[in-house]
Amino acid sequence: MKIDSFSQDSPGRVLVTGANGFLGRYVARSFADQGHTVSGIGHGGWSKDEWEPWGLSQWNSADVTLETLRQHAERPDVIVHCAGGGSVSFSIEDPIADFERTVVTTAHVLEYLRTSAPSCRVVYPSSASVYGTVDTVPIAEDFPTAPISQYGTHKLMAEQMVTSYARQFGTHASIVRLFSVYGCGLRKQLLWDACIKFAKQDGVFMGTGEEVRDWLHVQDASTLLLAASRHASPQCPTINGGSGRGATVREVLMRLGRNFDVEPGFSGTQRQGDPSRFIADIKGAKAWGWHPTKKWTQGVEEYAAWWKRNSL
Amino acid sequence: MKIDSFSQDSPGRVLVTGANGFLGRYVARSFADQGHTVSGIGHGGWSKDEWEPWGLSQWNSADVTLETLRQHAERPDVIVHCAGGGSVSFSIEDPIADFERTVVTTAHVLEYLRTSAPSCRVVYPSSASVYGTVDTVPIAEDFPTAPISQYGTHKLMAEQMVTSYARQFGTHASIVRLFSVYGCGLRKQLLWDACIKFAKQDGVFMGTGEEVRDWLHVQDASTLLLAASRHASPQCPTINGGSGRGATVREVLMRLGRNFDVEPGFSGTQRQGDPSRFIADIKGAKAWGWHPTKKWTQGVEEYAAWWKRNSL
Repeated sequence: MKIDSFSQDSPGRVLVTGANGFLGRYVARSFADQGHTVSGIGHGGWSKDEWEPWGLSQWNSADVTLETLRQHAERPDVIVHCAGGGSVSFSIEDPIADFERTVVTTAHVLEYLRTSAPSCRVVYPSSASVYGTVDTVPIAEDFPTAPISQYGTHKLMAEQMVTSYARQFGTHASIVRLFSVYGCGLRKQLLWDACIKFAKQDGVFMGTGEEVRDWLHVQDASTLLLAASRHASPQCPTINGGSGRGATVREVLMRLGRNFDVEPGFSGTQRQGDPSRFIADIKGAKAWGWHPTKKWTQGVEEYAAWWKRNSL
Repeated sequence: MKIDSFSQDSPGRVLVTGANGFLGRYVARSFADQGHTVSGIGHGGWSKDEWEPWGLSQWNSADVTLETLRQHAERPDVIVHCAGGGSVSFSIEDPIADFERTVVTTAHVLEYLRTSAPSCRVVYPSSASVYGTVDTVPIAEDFPTAPISQYGTHKLMAEQMVTSYARQFGTHASIVRLFSVYGCGLRKQLLWDACIKFAKQDGVFMGTGEEVRDWLHVQDASTLLLAASRHASPQCPTINGGSGRGATVREVLMRLGRNFDVEPGFSGTQRQGDPSRFIADIKGAKAWGWHPTKKWTQGVEEYAAWWKRNSL
């Protein structure tokens, strides 16, 4: 049966939506490295010279809709649905656009599977933002969801559709709730903003610096999504994607700042809605045989070096 | 302030989406009876002779989108968003259409409020299907949601957007989870199907007959949505809409069957996924001063009489 034949050892066809996004690129590369034929679909003009190094054998610049999937997807064995809204701030500025990118595209991917590719698996990279503000450490997957942002609400809505299709229509699916994914190529969020500040010899940040986050390198996130593709089923396992360890914002920025000879300082005011400690319980991922391989200390050093190469 | 001026005593402008559906018609009539100016928008050719008796002063036959709302809505004080998918079976046959009717229209209504009518209130008639299969009796609003059908999943997704807009953007909103709403004009579900059977002198039904449902007459549902419009706030109260009492399917069909001189019988097999007892805890609605007024015994008699007038 086709579904059972997809494994690390038998190459298959993989479609990555949003393949030119930060996560999508690494996901494409990880599947290609395992011998799979990877194609991509999503927004953005991207030349062959740009997408080929990420392991793609085809790139379709198009909205992710039922029609474009039917037109461009070539009998995939797996879809990793990386397309979607990319930030909390954008989701507040333009909530309907975030809804369309995250929720509507998921509806179309699922309907494509149901109607045109019932034996294809789907992996959905969700977000720890579905948990909202949580004081429990670490957070297990059965912790009640209570998103506080539009972004988190839309990710949860997308999750619910994936689970519902799996249960109702037998779609083979799995969901990974990613924590603080970072790595070379990420041109937003804390590390990016901090490099810009540090480069100007500015080191003052909002918050207390004591906020704990679970930093997961994007390469580890990609291998976890690869594992998730093997465990997709109509039961739709939903697991956390993190390192299982926390590091404070202060620790991370201290390490980053050394590369710019700047020591960070903090305003001391806790930002509303920011949970103080946010660490993943990764028992589920470990049960799949997956382990994070890159320590945040090494990842941050590499990020600083990449940033300097590309931005100075 | 406009928001505070909308009450039973000060007429305002009300827009009912899906106003030509079963619930929408009664909602329009209830608001009109309180002196409000009611307009409607939704699918369906409907002549003035047809919509005027339901209390509408205007009917726009159009998809519910940001664009059509901006075009047709005339500075409403309240929107009651009755448009949406109407049955579990349709949601399984055509899940993407159910998604578009229920979830996407809600996204557009909310975005219309945020961008064009920030002082307008929104009332969302949701469904008890968001609870899924529950053995607890009665079901309180803080019971964990776990829908089992696409229909219930989409209603929950719509609820989450409403709550999220209220919290994030200050939208004045309220949600009513309706249980088994019935009444004259409902041309589907148990009572409708049973009348067709009884008229053919057939009385054999699936199930045990012992399934308990909370029957709420559509007129009572409408007055509850009227109350909900007064209690809409950025806290987005979410309450159950039921009678607070249960009646078995056997009791209801016995009463209905008498009107056709048929005694119902049951196959005895419980249908998978059908919860055995489903009764609303209506403390929230009662705290608003609302009480159901029509007993199911009377409602069922009226339904039988209506069915005979319209279908025999």
